[in-house]
Amino acid sequence: MPIDSLETLRDRLRIFADERDWNKFHTPKNLSMALIAEAAELIEHFQWVEGDSSHLLEDTTRLAVEQELADILIYLVQISDKLGIDLLQAAEAKIEINAKKYPADKVRGSSKKYTEYEND
Amino acid sequence: MPIDSLETLRDRLRIFADERDWNKFHTPKNLSMALIAEAAELIEHFQWVEGDSSHLLEDTTRLAVEQELADILIYLVQISDKLGIDLLQAAEAKIEINAKKYPADKVRGSSKKYTEYEND
Amino acid sequence: MPIDSLETLRDRLRIFADERDWNKFHTPKNLSMALIAEAAELIEHFQWVEGDSSHLLEDTTRLAVEQELADILIYLVQISDKLGIDLLQAAEAKIEINAKKYPADKVRGSSKKYTEYEND
Amino acid sequence: MPIDSLETLRDRLRIFADERDWNKFHTPKNLSMALIAEAAELIEHFQWVEGDSSHLLEDTTRLAVEQELADILIYLVQISDKLGIDLLQAAEAKIEINAKKYPADKVRGSSKKYTEYEND
Repeated sequence: MPIDSLETLRDRLRIFADERDWNKFHTPKNLSMALIAEAAELIEHFQWVEGDSSHLLEDTTRLAVEQELADILIYLVQISDKLGIDLLQAAEAKIEINAKKYPADKVRGSSKKYTEYEND
Repeated sequence: MPIDSLETLRDRLRIFADERDWNKFHTPKNLSMALIAEAAELIEHFQWVEGDSSHLLEDTTRLAVEQELADILIYLVQISDKLGIDLLQAAEAKIEINAKKYPADKVRGSSKKYTEYEND
Repeated sequence: MPIDSLETLRDRLRIFADERDWNKFHTPKNLSMALIAEAAELIEHFQWVEGDSSHLLEDTTRLAVEQELADILIYLVQISDKLGIDLLQAAEAKIEINAKKYPADKVRGSSKKYTEYEND
Repeated sequence: MPIDSLETLRDRLRIFADERDWNKFHTPKNLSMALIAEAAELIEHFQWVEGDSSHLLEDTTRLAVEQELADILIYLVQISDKLGIDLLQAAEAKIEINAKKYPADKVRGSSKKYTEYEND
């Protein structure tokens, strides 16, 4: 079964945890800790580089970054599964909220407005 | 255009950032900071509750958690887009690595082994 | 010069960075990323254990935890130094704010109130 | 009792938690989650600004940053107290390790070496 959607990824992860009897460890609390640990591993790759060059990654770093992103997605899907949350629906709803909060004609091109609007 | 896949989510986010001229802020470095900030907002909902009851959320908390998960996915998709990384492929590759690293028959049902194996 | 106070720690860290010509990397932005990466390394030691037993550490874990705590303090002192902030004064001021926000006779012994009060 | 050292801060925090009967929530696991949540609040102040200007804070931001730094120190001292770890001793030991790991004459002035050496 190839992983070609969030649903197939969710299903594969269910099997993976079942086979290892890991569901007892996979409380939302623990999974949220695991997720942030991966987010921090991601950040480590960028912490001493300039923002402007942070998309230029050497091959080994690129592979590592790819794995951190994968880990974050894996934990994100597992938390959502435990809580019965549909990630794409949640993202769509959030984008609609953001669209009202940051109207394009008001925030366009201003870092100051961006900062003010974003930081809450 | 309904958001029914990671690709349509990515496309919607591209439009959203373009309309606001926000790409200049969206370096992988900055996006990784934004992602971890959302991961921390997620963790705040779970930090004082017992793991066993961390899937039981009151309605307002549940909605908030749903929005944090959405935010994490949004930043995750944006970083991947900037770096040209396919998230589902990356997840599939990572699961294969994990399957070799944690063979089901070896790690099954042992928190000790789980801990040892997981923490690296 | 033994490190017996936050000031002597700050001074030692200044010398350390100067000798290596690292101040150019030590913007508050970068240091805050480094700090959270260490906070995540700390969290990894606790993510799969029960809260009640999270103070019981094996010797090797204990040493690792000690080093993560040291790293967090180091980055905390460096950020404060760059911003000219007195950490102990800041902590004292924050405790006074908290004392008003969570009056002992109101929040005493209630996890519910604790949660409500704390999460903002 | 003025807070003029990490010890007096620790003692004040003990009293604060005792008066509120909060020790039952203060497992190292929970405190490490609280700490990273504060570290993320810190990072939010820096996520959309350039590193070079991240030390220039407006007054309201400066006060907020000061409070996040205070919160991080508070949780750091509480975790150390629960685990019986002396923070300054731990920092001194860590600096000695770092001094051997990053010899000044080898890493001086090179961001590449810095990155390589630091990221582990």
